[in-house]
Amino acid sequence: MEKLTLIKVGGQIVEEPETLNALLKDFSALNGKKVLVHGGGRAATRIASQLGIESKMINGRRVTDTDMLNVVTMVYGGLVNKKIVSGLQALGINALGLTGADMNYMRSDKRPVKEVDYGFVGDVKEVNSDILADLIEKNVVPVLAPLTHDGNGNMLNTNADTIAAEAAKALAKHFDVTLMFCFEKKGVLRNAEDEESVIETISKKDFIEYVNDGIIQGGMIPKLENAFDAIDNGVSQVVITRADQFGKNTGTIVK
Amino acid sequence: MEKLTLIKVGGQIVEEPETLNALLKDFSALNGKKVLVHGGGRAATRIASQLGIESKMINGRRVTDTDMLNVVTMVYGGLVNKKIVSGLQALGINALGLTGADMNYMRSDKRPVKEVDYGFVGDVKEVNSDILADLIEKNVVPVLAPLTHDGNGNMLNTNADTIAAEAAKALAKHFDVTLMFCFEKKGVLRNAEDEESVIETISKKDFIEYVNDGIIQGGMIPKLENAFDAIDNGVSQVVITRADQFGKNTGTIVK
Repeated sequence: MEKLTLIKVGGQIVEEPETLNALLKDFSALNGKKVLVHGGGRAATRIASQLGIESKMINGRRVTDTDMLNVVTMVYGGLVNKKIVSGLQALGINALGLTGADMNYMRSDKRPVKEVDYGFVGDVKEVNSDILADLIEKNVVPVLAPLTHDGNGNMLNTNADTIAAEAAKALAKHFDVTLMFCFEKKGVLRNAEDEESVIETISKKDFIEYVNDGIIQGGMIPKLENAFDAIDNGVSQVVITRADQFGKNTGTIVK
Repeated sequence: MEKLTLIKVGGQIVEEPETLNALLKDFSALNGKKVLVHGGGRAATRIASQLGIESKMINGRRVTDTDMLNVVTMVYGGLVNKKIVSGLQALGINALGLTGADMNYMRSDKRPVKEVDYGFVGDVKEVNSDILADLIEKNVVPVLAPLTHDGNGNMLNTNADTIAAEAAKALAKHFDVTLMFCFEKKGVLRNAEDEESVIETISKKDFIEYVNDGIIQGGMIPKLENAFDAIDNGVSQVVITRADQFGKNTGTIVK
């Protein structure tokens, strides 16, 4: 199968013009078929605040009421997505911005209310990879915003790591997929204080031990759970690295 | 050639939930291949105002500085577009939201500064209809936001009537295209006070006479110029009608 690289970048890097330009340059230089998944939480928080809408986070996840859903739909699907798409077009990459509603490529269920009501937040239910794969074959580069839809006319705010993992799993039917999660560190660190203490490879067994020992904690836990889930579902390789490093074979390889 | 209907609807109708739902229902019931082009100016004005950004209009066109470009990119490309796309998906229509940057389907030049500096406003330069036609053949329904890009990384605010006419012209190479401009009246009126005084057909010669006689004026002039330009460039038929009438063979036929 042909190789495909799916890169997920967080909010901060796509929101500053300098880091965004550097990212788009690195991404455009990457050989072969590719997909970009982006966040945008900081911009959403900033614009919500300017509109007098308070951002409420629980366990690092955004509570999304109707007003906040409008904000993230605007910011992720419009502002951030189109900045990336137009920037990639300027570099000769035939980018296409998508939310899950577009061509119904990713459908979610609104998260059930348990202890917490996250509001209009989606848990991914179904990915239609055929039309995505067809576009990728034609050298179109999908740029995926962290938004899905419920099939009943509602957009749903959806975690970008989840979008990346679900898209990678679905595209693994068509391509030999490498999934790269980019964040602010060079990889999963053995010692949070030491940027050079990158764990080179990590298995599920290692992961459980690291979590028990308190070496891996916080937002890295769901990120690695997403990574293992991707590996268990046909993705060839998952790499966790820093956004300015993804062409350089550094970072933590999840296997 | 297969028939294709391209419908342009203004801002107001897509911004109120009731009129939007009625529109999407009518649009989904329309037989054959189709494309929807939407505005969103009122929502842009409202959100700009909430963000403390003043909307400045000259000759009915929005002056688009950097802040306003961010607003229209968010509102047209995100908020309005994704409401329409998710609403159509709920009706079983495989909608795909696009700006001109997406797949580079429509590229513009920033309007040169003459008497007026409109800012980041695009004059359409090039339409790549092949990939659009290819998607339409696969029963994807493009939903076009009034935004293009300059190929150098900048989005450009672009009049929705122009987007509709340029897309219709380009798609006329692939389909037998009917272009429908929907606005708040049942058609071009002989008497602005009488909603029933619809001019049934209008030729370019009639148009010049009507303008000279002051019967046609204001925003209807560029709309009809766009219509004649479309007819001169391969579009089979242009109809000017009210958004709740487009399935009913009413309105003004431009020939």
